[in-house]
Parts: sequence; C-alpha cells; structure tokens
Amino acid sequence: MALTIAAVDPTVGGVLVFGDRGTGKSTAVRALAAVLPPMQASDCAYRCDPARSTEACETCRDGGTGQTKATPVPVPVVDLPLGATEDRIVGALDLERALTAGEKRFEPGLLARANRGFLYIDEINLLEDHLVDLLLDVAASGENVVEREGLSVRHPARFVLIGSGNPEEGELRPQLLDRFGLSVEVTTPTDLATRIEVVKRRDAFERDPEGFAAGYDAANAAVRGTIMAGRQRLRSIAVPDATLEKAAQLSLRLGTDGLRGELTLMRAARALAALEGDAVVEWTHLARLAPLALSHRLRRDPLDEAGSAARVERAVGELEAAA
Amino acid sequence: MALTIAAVDPTVGGVLVFGDRGTGKSTAVRALAAVLPPMQASDCAYRCDPARSTEACETCRDGGTGQTKATPVPVPVVDLPLGATEDRIVGALDLERALTAGEKRFEPGLLARANRGFLYIDEINLLEDHLVDLLLDVAASGENVVEREGLSVRHPARFVLIGSGNPEEGELRPQLLDRFGLSVEVTTPTDLATRIEVVKRRDAFERDPEGFAAGYDAANAAVRGTIMAGRQRLRSIAVPDATLEKAAQLSLRLGTDGLRGELTLMRAARALAALEGDAVVEWTHLARLAPLALSHRLRRDPLDEAGSAARVERAVGELEAAA
Amino acid sequence: MALTIAAVDPTVGGVLVFGDRGTGKSTAVRALAAVLPPMQASDCAYRCDPARSTEACETCRDGGTGQTKATPVPVPVVDLPLGATEDRIVGALDLERALTAGEKRFEPGLLARANRGFLYIDEINLLEDHLVDLLLDVAASGENVVEREGLSVRHPARFVLIGSGNPEEGELRPQLLDRFGLSVEVTTPTDLATRIEVVKRRDAFERDPEGFAAGYDAANAAVRGTIMAGRQRLRSIAVPDATLEKAAQLSLRLGTDGLRGELTLMRAARALAALEGDAVVEWTHLARLAPLALSHRLRRDPLDEAGSAARVERAVGELEAAA
Amino acid sequence: MALTIAAVDPTVGGVLVFGDRGTGKSTAVRALAAVLPPMQASDCAYRCDPARSTEACETCRDGGTGQTKATPVPVPVVDLPLGATEDRIVGALDLERALTAGEKRFEPGLLARANRGFLYIDEINLLEDHLVDLLLDVAASGENVVEREGLSVRHPARFVLIGSGNPEEGELRPQLLDRFGLSVEVTTPTDLATRIEVVKRRDAFERDPEGFAAGYDAANAAVRGTIMAGRQRLRSIAVPDATLEKAAQLSLRLGTDGLRGELTLMRAARALAALEGDAVVEWTHLARLAPLALSHRLRRDPLDEAGSAARVERAVGELEAAA
Amino acid sequence: MALTIAAVDPTVGGVLVFGDRGTGKSTAVRALAAVLPPMQASDCAYRCDPARSTEACETCRDGGTGQTKATPVPVPVVDLPLGATEDRIVGALDLERALTAGEKRFEPGLLARANRGFLYIDEINLLEDHLVDLLLDVAASGENVVEREGLSVRHPARFVLIGSGNPEEGELRPQLLDRFGLSVEVTTPTDLATRIEVVKRRDAFERDPEGFAAGYDAANAAVRGTIMAGRQRLRSIAVPDATLEKAAQLSLRLGTDGLRGELTLMRAARALAALEGDAVVEWTHLARLAPLALSHRLRRDPLDEAGSAARVERAVGELEAAA
Amino acid sequence: MALTIAAVDPTVGGVLVFGDRGTGKSTAVRALAAVLPPMQASDCAYRCDPARSTEACETCRDGGTGQTKATPVPVPVVDLPLGATEDRIVGALDLERALTAGEKRFEPGLLARANRGFLYIDEINLLEDHLVDLLLDVAASGENVVEREGLSVRHPARFVLIGSGNPEEGELRPQLLDRFGLSVEVTTPTDLATRIEVVKRRDAFERDPEGFAAGYDAANAAVRGTIMAGRQRLRSIAVPDATLEKAAQLSLRLGTDGLRGELTLMRAARALAALEGDAVVEWTHLARLAPLALSHRLRRDPLDEAGSAARVERAVGELEAAA
Repeated sequence: MALTIAAVDPTVGGVLVFGDRGTGKSTAVRALAAVLPPMQASDCAYRCDPARSTEACETCRDGGTGQTKATPVPVPVVDLPLGATEDRIVGALDLERALTAGEKRFEPGLLARANRGFLYIDEINLLEDHLVDLLLDVAASGENVVEREGLSVRHPARFVLIGSGNPEEGELRPQLLDRFGLSVEVTTPTDLATRIEVVKRRDAFERDPEGFAAGYDAANAAVRGTIMAGRQRLRSIAVPDATLEKAAQLSLRLGTDGLRGELTLMRAARALAALEGDAVVEWTHLARLAPLALSHRLRRDPLDEAGSAARVERAVGELEAAA
Repeated sequence: MALTIAAVDPTVGGVLVFGDRGTGKSTAVRALAAVLPPMQASDCAYRCDPARSTEACETCRDGGTGQTKATPVPVPVVDLPLGATEDRIVGALDLERALTAGEKRFEPGLLARANRGFLYIDEINLLEDHLVDLLLDVAASGENVVEREGLSVRHPARFVLIGSGNPEEGELRPQLLDRFGLSVEVTTPTDLATRIEVVKRRDAFERDPEGFAAGYDAANAAVRGTIMAGRQRLRSIAVPDATLEKAAQLSLRLGTDGLRGELTLMRAARALAALEGDAVVEWTHLARLAPLALSHRLRRDPLDEAGSAARVERAVGELEAAA
Repeated sequence: MALTIAAVDPTVGGVLVFGDRGTGKSTAVRALAAVLPPMQASDCAYRCDPARSTEACETCRDGGTGQTKATPVPVPVVDLPLGATEDRIVGALDLERALTAGEKRFEPGLLARANRGFLYIDEINLLEDHLVDLLLDVAASGENVVEREGLSVRHPARFVLIGSGNPEEGELRPQLLDRFGLSVEVTTPTDLATRIEVVKRRDAFERDPEGFAAGYDAANAAVRGTIMAGRQRLRSIAVPDATLEKAAQLSLRLGTDGLRGELTLMRAARALAALEGDAVVEWTHLARLAPLALSHRLRRDPLDEAGSAARVERAVGELEAAA
Repeated sequence: MALTIAAVDPTVGGVLVFGDRGTGKSTAVRALAAVLPPMQASDCAYRCDPARSTEACETCRDGGTGQTKATPVPVPVVDLPLGATEDRIVGALDLERALTAGEKRFEPGLLARANRGFLYIDEINLLEDHLVDLLLDVAASGENVVEREGLSVRHPARFVLIGSGNPEEGELRPQLLDRFGLSVEVTTPTDLATRIEVVKRRDAFERDPEGFAAGYDAANAAVRGTIMAGRQRLRSIAVPDATLEKAAQLSLRLGTDGLRGELTLMRAARALAALEGDAVVEWTHLARLAPLALSHRLRRDPLDEAGSAARVERAVGELEAAA
Repeated sequence: MALTIAAVDPTVGGVLVFGDRGTGKSTAVRALAAVLPPMQASDCAYRCDPARSTEACETCRDGGTGQTKATPVPVPVVDLPLGATEDRIVGALDLERALTAGEKRFEPGLLARANRGFLYIDEINLLEDHLVDLLLDVAASGENVVEREGLSVRHPARFVLIGSGNPEEGELRPQLLDRFGLSVEVTTPTDLATRIEVVKRRDAFERDPEGFAAGYDAANAAVRGTIMAGRQRLRSIAVPDATLEKAAQLSLRLGTDGLRGELTLMRAARALAALEGDAVVEWTHLARLAPLALSHRLRRDPLDEAGSAARVERAVGELEAAA
Repeated sequence: MALTIAAVDPTVGGVLVFGDRGTGKSTAVRALAAVLPPMQASDCAYRCDPARSTEACETCRDGGTGQTKATPVPVPVVDLPLGATEDRIVGALDLERALTAGEKRFEPGLLARANRGFLYIDEINLLEDHLVDLLLDVAASGENVVEREGLSVRHPARFVLIGSGNPEEGELRPQLLDRFGLSVEVTTPTDLATRIEVVKRRDAFERDPEGFAAGYDAANAAVRGTIMAGRQRLRSIAVPDATLEKAAQLSLRLGTDGLRGELTLMRAARALAALEGDAVVEWTHLARLAPLALSHRLRRDPLDEAGSAARVERAVGELEAAA
C-alpha cells in the first residue's frame, strides 16, 4: 500500500521498509517496476517530462526538439548498491577530455537514471555518511550538481527514495529518517501455510524467472490501472478541516516534532482515497495510514515499552474513543 | 523580526535559527529573498557596490567602467548545502588552463555569489570543522582568498550568515556561536487552528508554487518598504548613554564574556527603532531584543535549570523591577 | 557433503567452513577442483555458458561466434588472498591507454576468473569491510561493474562463495553470514589413529605432490560421477508439502529471521536426495542437513549455553519426538 | 606595554595574549601596526635589512644593488588565519613551471611577508599541530626552508610571534608556550563607564573606520616616538648583578624550568627601562614585568588554587618583604 | 639448532627467535649465511633452481638456456628492515616506461632476492599489519604477484621466514605465529665468564670485522658439511608410527589447535636425526624439539603460571613417566 | 664528557641528552661543532673517507679520482628539525627528470649531510614514529636507501645520533632508547652565581654572536687537541678481564637486558682512558661512566622510587663496598 500511494502522489516522500532479513523486502520493491504505468519522456539522458519545461535538463530547455520526440518509457526503479562509489552515484566528469579536447563530457550516474522514478537503497542504514549527505542534498533540491576542478554539470534528479534495512544492524540518522514520508515494518510470517507458499513461490521463481513472471501479468495490469485512476482522481479529492484537525490532534498526542508528520499523513490519506475511489478524505483513511506516516517520527519514550507502531495505533484508538 | 533587523543593519551580525525539524525554519529564510529591496550593483561576478570602491573586486577597482553600469539586482540569498565541497564553496582555480594557456581562470563559488547578501546554512551544527574554520576566516576578513599551487585569487565576500539547526543533533562550537549577532528559537505550534492553517498553506504551496507566491506579493511589498525606510532612518537614531548603561547592566548580570553581547544588543535595538519609526533607542527596544542578542552567549549554569532565553527574560524583569 | 551439494545446485548459496587452524580447511576446498565435472564454455575471458545467452558477457552476446567454439574447461576454483587489492579483485581499467589510444582495455580480475565457478576466501572474517561490501554487491547482482573516471566495464560474475575462518579471530558481519547457504564446523580430531594418518598423508603430499595426487584419481572420478548424476536428477526430485512444513516448523522452533533458512534447507535437501538417488525429499534429508543450513542463522541465546549446531540438533530431535 | 617592549627589543620573544572572547585582543594587536616606526628595507620580497647582510635573502646577498635601494617601509604585521593551508603559510613552489620552463618560481607565503615584523595568530590554541611544529622550526632557525620534490628555496623569516586565544577552548602545548617571551591576560571590564565607552568607540569605528582612525593620529605618533627613543637607548642600559640576582631568586622561588624565564625577564626589564628613559635596570622594573615574563612558565600546583599571575605577584611581594 | 634444522628441511617452516634486546639474535641469524652450502642457480633475477622447472620464473621456463648456465651461488639471507616500503618489498613496476615505451620493466624487490633462501625480519612484532598480510600471502603461495594499474608480474618467492622480536613490545598475530615452524627463546646469559667472552668477541668483531670472520672459517666449514650430509640423509630417515603416536599424544595433552604442531615436530625431528646421523626418528628427538615446535602454539592458560616452554617440558616429562 | 667520548670513539653509539627546557641542551650540542678536529674527505656529496673505500659512495668507488682530492673539511653536525619531511631527511629523487631526460638525479638530504658526523634531533621524543623507524634502519645499516617508483639510490650514512628531549612531554620507544650508547640528564642549576653567569653569557652571545664566539677560540682548540690525542691512543688502551668482570657484575646487579650495556660501558671507559692519557681501563673509569651508559637501560622498578641514575650510582657504591 505504501508503494502504491507513493506511485500516486510522489510528494508524499520516500518509503522506508524495515524488518528482518529474508522477508522479501527487496523483492517487493523490485516488483514495483512491473506495476508502474509508463511515463512520457523526451529522449535525453534524464528522460525529462516534456510537459514540465521548468524541471527539464539543459538540453531539453535549449532545443525545442526534445519536446516533439516524447515517447512512453518505463518509470525507472534504480538500485543503489552499498558499495557504489560517489562517481557512480552522481556521475563522472571526464576531466581529461575536457582539457585536451575542450569538450565537457559527462557520464550520467545512478541519480540521473533515477530521475522521475524511484531510487532503491537496500540496507540504507549501512550507507556511508558522506553518501547520505549527498543524497539528502539532492533529494532536497531535486537537482544533482557535479563539480570537479572548475568544471560543473547540473541536471534534474527528482526521485522517490525507497530504503530498506534492518534497524538492529545500525540506526538511521534522524535527518534521514525524517525525509521518508512513510515507513513500513515487515516481519517474518509465523503462519505455516504462508511460509510454505512463500518458499514454493521463491523456488519456482528462481528455477524459471521468466515463466514465473508471466503468471503475474494480469494481476500487475490491474494494479497499474488502479494507480492510473488514482492519479487522475487525486486533484479532485477534498480534505475537510475536520479531517485536518484529527491529523493535528493525533500528532499533538504523539508529540511528533514539527508539522511534517501531519502534512504527510494528510497527503497519504488523500492518495489512498484516490486509489480507493473515495471523494473525500475521512477519519478511516487517516486511521489506516497513521502508523505508516507517524511511527518513525516518534521520540523514544523510555517509560513506554510498546513499539512505535503500537503507540501510534493506541493513540488512534484513544482518539476514536474520545470522538 | 531578527531577519528584518539584519536586513536593516547587516553589522548586527548573522542570525541563528534553531528548533525542531519541520517548523518551517528553511521556509522563513527563503521567504526573506522576496522582501529584500534590490541593490545597485556593477556587473562583475561579485556584484560590487559602485558606491564603495574600497570594498570592490579587482576588476571594478581597475576599470572605471564598472561604476557606470550600475543596475539594480536582487540581494542574493545563497544556500550552502551540507555536502558542498570546499571547491564549490570558495570557488575553483583552473590550474590546467593556468599552466597551459598562461591564463588565470577562476570559477567563483558560493561565497562569491553570497557577496553583499545572505549565506544560509541549514543544519549548520553538522557542517564539517574545516568548512566552519574557512567560513569564520572569510566572515572575519570580508574577503575570500583562494590559493592553489602558487596561484591566488582574492575577492570581496561580505555576507550575513544565517544558520539553522537542531541543537539536539550536534552542538555549535563556541567560536561559531559567538559570531552570530542574534539567535531565535522556533518551536512547533501547539494550537490546532494554527497547525491546520500551516498544513493547508504548505500543501497549497507545493501544489502550485507560483500561484501561491503571487498571493503574497502585496504583503512582501509592504515589508520591503518598511526595511527601506528603516535603512534611511538608521543613521539618525540616537542611543542615549542611559540606554547603553542598561545594556551593560544586563550583560553584567548575565555574566556574558566580553562586550560583543551589549554591542550587538545596542545595534539591534537601534535597527528596531529605525524599523518602527522611533527616533531614540529606549529600554523597551532593549527588553524585546535581549533574548535574541544574549541567549546564545550565556555560559551553562548547572544550578539553573531554566533555558537560556528564560534566564535572559528573568534578568530583564529584575532590571525593570529595580528601575 | 556441503561442497558436493553446492556443486550439484549452486543456488543453495555459498559454503562457510569454520574451525581451528591446521585442520585442513583449505586443503578440503582445494581438493574440490579435482572432483568437479568440466563445463562447456566459450573462449571469452569469462568462460560464458553458450547455452545461457542472457548471462553471457558483451562479447559473447554481440558475436554469434562465441557459441560455436564451446569447449569443455575445468570449473574454476579461485583463491582470493587476504592482501589482494581491489584492482586485483575487480580487474583494472587501463586509463592511460583509454585516453591516449582511445581504446578501452580491461584486465579481468579474480571475480572474472571465478565466473561460473567457486571463489574461495581463507580467513574471510579478516577481510576488509570495503571488500566485503564489494563481494556482497557482486554476489547479489551476479555482475561485476568497474567504473573509473567515466569509463565503465561490466561482466558476469556468478560464483559460489566458499569462506573459511576461525571465529575466535574476528566475527563475520551478519549480512555476510546470511549470504552463505551452508556452514560447516571443523574441529581437530582427537582420535590418535586419525591424527597419525592425517600427518602421514600430509607429509607424503608435501614430499611428492604429483605422485600423491595420482593415488586419488580413481576416487575423484567416482565423486565426479556422483555429482554429474545428481545434477541430472535434480530437476525431477519432488518436495512434498509435508516436508516443507517440517522445514518451516524447524525454522519457527529455532526462531530464525526470515525465510532464507528453510528455503536453503529445502534446496540442500533436494540436492542431497539427487546425489543419493532418492526421488522424493524426506524428513531424513532435512534432519541431516538442518545443522548445516540453520546453525549460522540462529540468534545468540544468552540463556542457552549449547553451541548453535547442538541447538539445531536438539530441535531436530524434539520435532522427531513430536511426530 | 608587552607589545611596545617587543617592538623595542624583538629578542624578548613573542607575546601571548589570552582571555575571554570579545575583549578586543585582536583590535589591540592590529593597532600595533599604526604605532611601529618604519624600517629601512631593500626592495626584495622579504624586505631585507640593508645593514645586516648576514641575514639577507639570496638575491640581496648576490647583487649589491639591493643595498643602494633601501627605502623606509612599514613594519609588517601579518595575520595568519586558522584555516590557512601550509602552502599559503610557507609559500608555494611552482613545480610545473620548474619542470617545463626549467625555472624555479617561488610564490612567497605569510612567513615571507612577516619577515622582520610581527606574525599574529588569533586563536593560536586551535592551530593544527603540524602547523605549530612548522612555526616552531622557523621561529627557532629564523629561516624558512621549502622543499618539494627535490627543489628547494630558503629565505629569512625572523618575526615576533603574537598569539591570542582563550585557554578554555584548548590548551597550548608546553613547547609553544615556552617560546613566548611575555604573556598577558585580558579580562572583560566590569566597570559600567568603561564598558559604555568601549561600546561607543567600537560602534564609532565600525560606522566610519577612516574618520575614527584619524582621531588617533597624534596619540599614535607619540607612542612611535617613545619606541624609537627606547630602541636607541637600549644598548646603553646597564643591568647590575644585583638585579640579575633578584631575577634568579624570583625564578628559583617559583620553580620555573630552565633559565629562559629570568633571561626574558632581564631583557624585558631592560627594554622597559629604555622606554621609560631609565639608565639602569632596577628591581621595580623586574617587579612590574615578572607576571608577564614568568606566569606562563609555572608548573601547575594542585595545592595552590591561585592563578599563575597571582602566584608570581605573591612571590614578588615576598622577595620585596625579605629585602 | 633450529636454524640448521631449517637449513636441512625448509618445509619445517620459519623460525621465530624471541627474547631480550642485545642478546645477539640478529648476529646469530646473520651468521647463518656463512654456514649455508651454496646452491645451483640459473642466472635469472630469482636464481631459479635448474632442477625444478615447475617452480622456475617465466624467463627460465620460456628459454631453455637458463638451465645450461647453472652456477653455484650463496644461499640468500635477506634483511627486511621495518621501515621498508611495500614497493621495496614486492618490487616496483615502472609504469611510465610501460606506458611510453610499451615495455614491462620490473625492479625486483626483497622478496625476489630472498627466493630459495631466508628472509629475516628483526622486530617482526612491530611490522605493519598490511605488510604482514602480504608476507603471509606470499609465504602461503610461494609466489609474489605484483599488480598495478592493469600490469602484472609474478615470480617465485619461496623462502624460510626468520623473525626475531621482543614479545614485551608487541604481540604477534596468531595467524603469523602459527606460520612459524619452530620458535626459540633467547635470554641474557647470567654467567660472568660467558658475558665477558661475548663482550670481548663483539668488540673484536667490530674493531676488525674481516679478521674476526677469518678466525671462524674452519668452524663454519664443519657446520656446512654437517648440513650437506643431513640433507642427503633426509629422504631415507624412517619415522615409525610409534613415534608419530608420541607426537600426537604430546599435542593432545597440550591441547594445540589443529595438526600443524605434530606435523612440524615430526619433520623437525626427522631433520635432527638426519643432522646427527641417526636412521630412525626416536622419542629422544621429539623430546628435545618439542619446546621449539609446540611452545608458540599453546593457548594461554590463566591458571597455569609457567611459561609455555616450561609447560611443554612438563608434558614431555609426564609422557616419559607414563611410558 | 659524553660528547667528547663519542667524538673519540663513535662506535660507543649515540648520546641522549634529556632534561628541562631552557637548560642549554641545544647550545651544548651546537658547541660540539667548534671543537671537532677536521676530517679528510673526498669532494663527493657524502664526504667519503678516502682511506676506507669499503664505506665509500658509488662515485668514490667507481672513479679513483675521489681519493686524490682528499681535503680537510669540518665534521658535520646536522640539525634534524621536528617538522622535516621524509624527503628532506632521506633526500629526493627527481622522478620527472628521470623520466624525461633518462637521467637519475638525486638531491641529497639531511642523512647525506650527516654522513661521518653527528645528527642532532631536538625533542626527539616528539618525532613521528615512521621517521624514528627510518632513522633506526639507517643507523643500523650505515646506509641510506631511497626507492621511488622503481628508481633507487643508496649512499653511506654513518653518523652519531644525538637526541635531546624532555621526558615529561613524551617517552622514547624502548628500541630507540636502546640505540643510544650514553645518556645524560641535565637539570636547571640552583646556584645563584651560576644562573647569573649563564644568563649574562647568553645575553652577550645573542647581542654579538661573532664576538662572543671569538672569545672561546683558545678553549675550543685545547679540547680539539685532547680529542685528537685520545683518538690516537685509543687502539693501544688495554681492557683487563677484571675490569670486564666488574662491568658484567654491575649489569647483572642492575638487571639490564642483554649485553649492550656492558659493551658500551667498556668502550666508553676505554675512550675516557684515552682522553685522559691512561694506558689501562680501571674500575674508576667504569664507575664514572656507569650512570651514563646504564641509566637508560634499566627497567622501571615500581618498588624503588629513586631515579635511574641514582640506582646506578647505588649499585656502583655496593660493588665498591663489596670489593
């Protein structure tokens, strides 16, 4: 649900998936690529949106030709491996060619490939600090600036960040945590039938990846349709002040810092309403999304031993009771 | 108020904004650009002031032509992202070109762009130490000196430093803290109506940034007028010795090191009087500004559990009572 | 047994051998090379499989000639010495030649040599962290990407990782531990006759390596035959749901994270059945392999002083008793 | 007083100014430049003294022309900012030009500019260790040797080191402390009238630096005259053995290591006598200077809670009483 | 004795000499060179053995000429100084020449010079970790692989490692310790006559090194003869199972990890028998060598305060008593 | 005394001077240069001894011309400043010239200049570890080997190391301590007359260095004569076994590690006898030198609070009493 909400309204912010190893976190993210509707793109290296010239790269802005060649392309879902060098992430400027041939040559990196799509970082809690800083800068500005020895290249880099990790192996910095709109906790299923089913599917997938995928084509197409419909409805969904007040009450009760929590909760609830065909955002939408939008924004409470998702659910219950 | 005071009298020193995440600190700073009156500038890379040749760059001092071309330009409000390299901040000397073509080519950096304006550093408490040293040097001398392998470039770099940060995530070094003239603490509003209003505005802004900004044009113009009037009045405001004595008494009572505290308090009060159309700086101006000018200069007092702003306010109250 | 299982079904994952120094860990791994059946390979630097063009290197995919020249070659068993540089592992791009002659020249590294074979790392627990990250990335993607200054080469690098180490000298990171399918603990024999026999063989081997090896040719050929037969049978072995349920019960009882444990156990048991000529995977296969597939996935239990292999065996016994 | 003594007899050694922030330490040092009498210098990059050929640079020693062109120039007072690179301090050898054009080109650094003058380091206690080592080497030898890749340049670098700092923010290494001849402690004035006066002057200075300075021209000229007269008298001042004995008694009583303390005390007292027109160095000169010359050479005494200046003054009093 | 054993059978492994400073450790090792019989070598840079083409360098393997030019040369005893760079140890590839002249030029290092001889490292416990790793890799593989920027050279590097050190100044890593076959502890003699004799010899040696050495020619020749005879006898010495059983019992009783201890003990005892003209390895050979072969393989026993050599001797005594 | 002994017999080893700052340690060492007799040297960069061709540099060994040009030159006393780079110490290979002009050009460093003389390191306890390693290697081998990128230069570098330092500011590593033959402790004089005299001389020296030095010419010449006579007598001095026995008894009683202590004591006593015109080394020579030769070789004894020099003197007294 969190991933489809981000697909409907990317301004909700990134999605953080955390939980035990071997629970299919990476598989879920990679499945996302199969359900995303294609997008219209010019044929530049950054697949600019022909309809939004203010966010286009230099080439697209300079020449008008880029706009006429718009073609549908798949939305990129790009993996950022832990061991990636900074050059591979931001792209590399070929200094030698610049100096000898007087020509600025830029090899776009993973950030360029992720533009207008999703950037997935598995084990994000183990990413080196200077790369985290770099990602935060780019995510905040929507632009990647590469500067080396007096040469500089800038290009659009707007993407939804998806991170996964096991919090037992290293914590996320609060700044990074706060940049994620929604967080999802995944646990190992304890039900025998589910486990057997998952193991069988995984074995089937690895024995014949192509055949396995073909079996899911119809289901993927259905999800894709829902996302496209949701996007169209999004602009027209109403958010009554009463709903906003509930979101604010929830945040106050939980003592989250700042207003980013209720802002995200409102947007995610609006996207959920759009996905489900509702015209107005109600308390029920909020209640279902509150654990995803607020859990990772709580402060540690040494006197409260419940997990943060449980604390959010308890606050939801209390508000409901009070109503 | 702190930002408009700095806009009226930049010698007050920088402004430090601290508080929880998501309270609109960055938004407030970015809004500043919209209310600043334009300035007259020559067309060099540093936008030198044609009226102050002693602070001009080499090009402007050498040729008299720079002065004739003065045009009004917006006052720069420049972001210094945390991950910025030293080259990007100070500018880069193109060594290769210097050696092969015998020509000194300098790519101005963020410090050049911030000249005569504002330099904003979000999460300044996380900035690397060597960059902090560099900023302190430039801020102290008003000049940026770049030296690489025997080549050197220097240019004016006078700016008002604006920093924001969450003190829970890393403390500022005392030297850096002392360089800020005023400090402001921002907290999350606890009033439901305010929260709802802020969330609605933020959502409106992100959905249609241009339309949203247009709605504030008149309000911005009014603030701009006040600032311009304040600047004109500034030179003629009187500061009676009795007022200076009050400022000194306040500093003594609070035990701040050195005299920079009362000097800043006097200047900020004078700018405030100018903004509000008063001809003389009075105790009331001091009293309102004391928490901004003095809070960040207090030593920790392990026996006094009140926050530093509260301690300043208490001292203000005691002085008033004694009068 | 663990090594032959990995030879029959490489998707079981790597094998981790740990125990005291001087127990022949390295010798066992090196003996593996002698019993592996040869494989069909094109004559490119990566010995691509002519039957699987989707996993082939660029050269093999571009020209159809690679496929016609398939010849049987030994399966590579490559040593990665602790002191190896990153260049030696991933291969080196000759930047100078690229720049001067405009030609991309790549010197393949150890990862290239290990493609379609085994990569052996003695004392893997002492490997530097950045090399571990690098290996995890390549092992996860099956591809080695080398990027330097804007040039890039990518080639297939699918291998079974075999690690050995003495846990007393440094622990493995959980992420690395989890990537190994099976783990084997080796101890010094305490039986006098065995020790004397091992010492005599070792001395004989070092005095005349070639003569010694010749004495084992027939035994090696027998093992090779068993592996080849096991591979052919593998596809047709059945895994009843009852067996999967047992595997899931075992994992639940031991509280392993995620489902990778029972997935590996199922696959290893299937390979074992294939090796031994059984048509169906039974509880007895699971029971024998559980310590190898699950021991290294247990959490530390401070209240349970038994070693992890003993804990797995106890759980196997309890399940058997319950049946 | 300490600065004028160093101006009369530079062999007294450097001056260390420490105390709270914002007490005008830097301002005092910068005012020094205005009161120093000009010196005769040849027109080389190091402003060599035409009267002392043994201390001249290579150019001045080789050609006799340097001596004929002696002109009066201001004594340099050079700032060494904390963030300065080693290249900027020692100067930079242009290796490329050396190699391509066969010509040794040296860009003199801050040490060259400080030759025969003063080198001021604000916050010297925060200077990086390797730069401290470098300064100690140059200060000890009076010569700056720059060596890079087999090329070498050496030039005279004799200067009086002036350091300021706040000991609360980092201690000075004992070796560095011992290199300073005199130390001065500055504190925030607690007298209201003084504070008001200082704040008013500072504000006046920053509003109109040139006008403000002009108001002090006459006072500066008077100090300059006193310094010049002191220098002329210096050679003829007598230091009776009885005075030397007092200095030795004082050092013994305070337990300072080595004899550098009394040597400095004697020289500083001689310079003070010269400044004040006395023909003979008396006990009164010693008594006034002892806190400046000896305080920073005391060992910590855990049983004596008085500050080190107070301990020196107490020893002076005891000696006086004993006489 | 340990050194002559290693000279007879290099497969015994390296020798570790530890003890106080100034006990002639280095002198003993350096004296070894004088007693080693010369070896037949081709005239390549690695002095390959013409009789073992599988261990020869590329040049010797390619051209048959190397074998005809075999000449007797002294066995190398090479010093590896602590401060040696990696380039000096492994040899240096001349990258520039490779690139400009297209010619691979390799400057062999200390490992090349030590091939087929001895490599001596004084204060081996202070050697940097990355050099220790490098030596372990080369010692394990018998080959030195140098790779830089895509160029690579490999050459044989089989040597007996001799290390000396003072364990009080830094411990050896267990892996390195385990690579040494024998260890010897050296202590300062406490007998006056011995001390006087040693001091006199040392003084005589340093006053006239050549004359001093000449006085020992006959003694050296005798030792050389014994070593040559021992080598010839080595192949025919019998090791009865009863002796192997005793070695295994000793190791078991001492609880050494793995079987490397008894393997080394057996080989060293065989070499000792060969040196002394015995046809069969007996318990007495084992008993004399056990402290050398086993002491450094014991685990620390916090309850047993005896040194490790004493613990081995006690176990030898107990086994004897039990027999 | 220690310095003249080292001047008579350099094989005594280096001299370590430690004590408080400001006690004239550096001055004493620098005065040494004035009393050393000149030596005969060829005109190469290393001032080789024409009489010892086995220790000569390559140039001197190749061409016979070096020997004919022998001229008397002053013995070098070279300062190694703390901040010196490795290149400045060992010398620099000009790689560029080697590559472009095919010519090996070496810029000799401080070690080359110190050959056959003295190398003085003030504050040796603060020297960086890698430079200490480097010095130990060169001091042990008498040769400086510089290797960079496949080029190599070696030249003789035999020198007497003189170190000074304040042990309170950092301890010497035991290996370095052990390399010094003699150690001297210097303390601040507590006698008033001496202090006054020293201060007066120091002041006189700094006011007129050349005139001051001239006043000591005769005294220096006398010392020089004594050193030359001592050198000539050295070879003929007898060291009776009874004296050696005393030295050994002293070392045993003090429990020094190894025999280097008594070897140095014997040599220093012989040099002292030579200096003083005695034909035979007696107990009295030993007794005077024991504190210098043995103090720095004692182990710390936590139960004995006396300083190490006092412990040596006590042992000397006990031995005398026992005799």
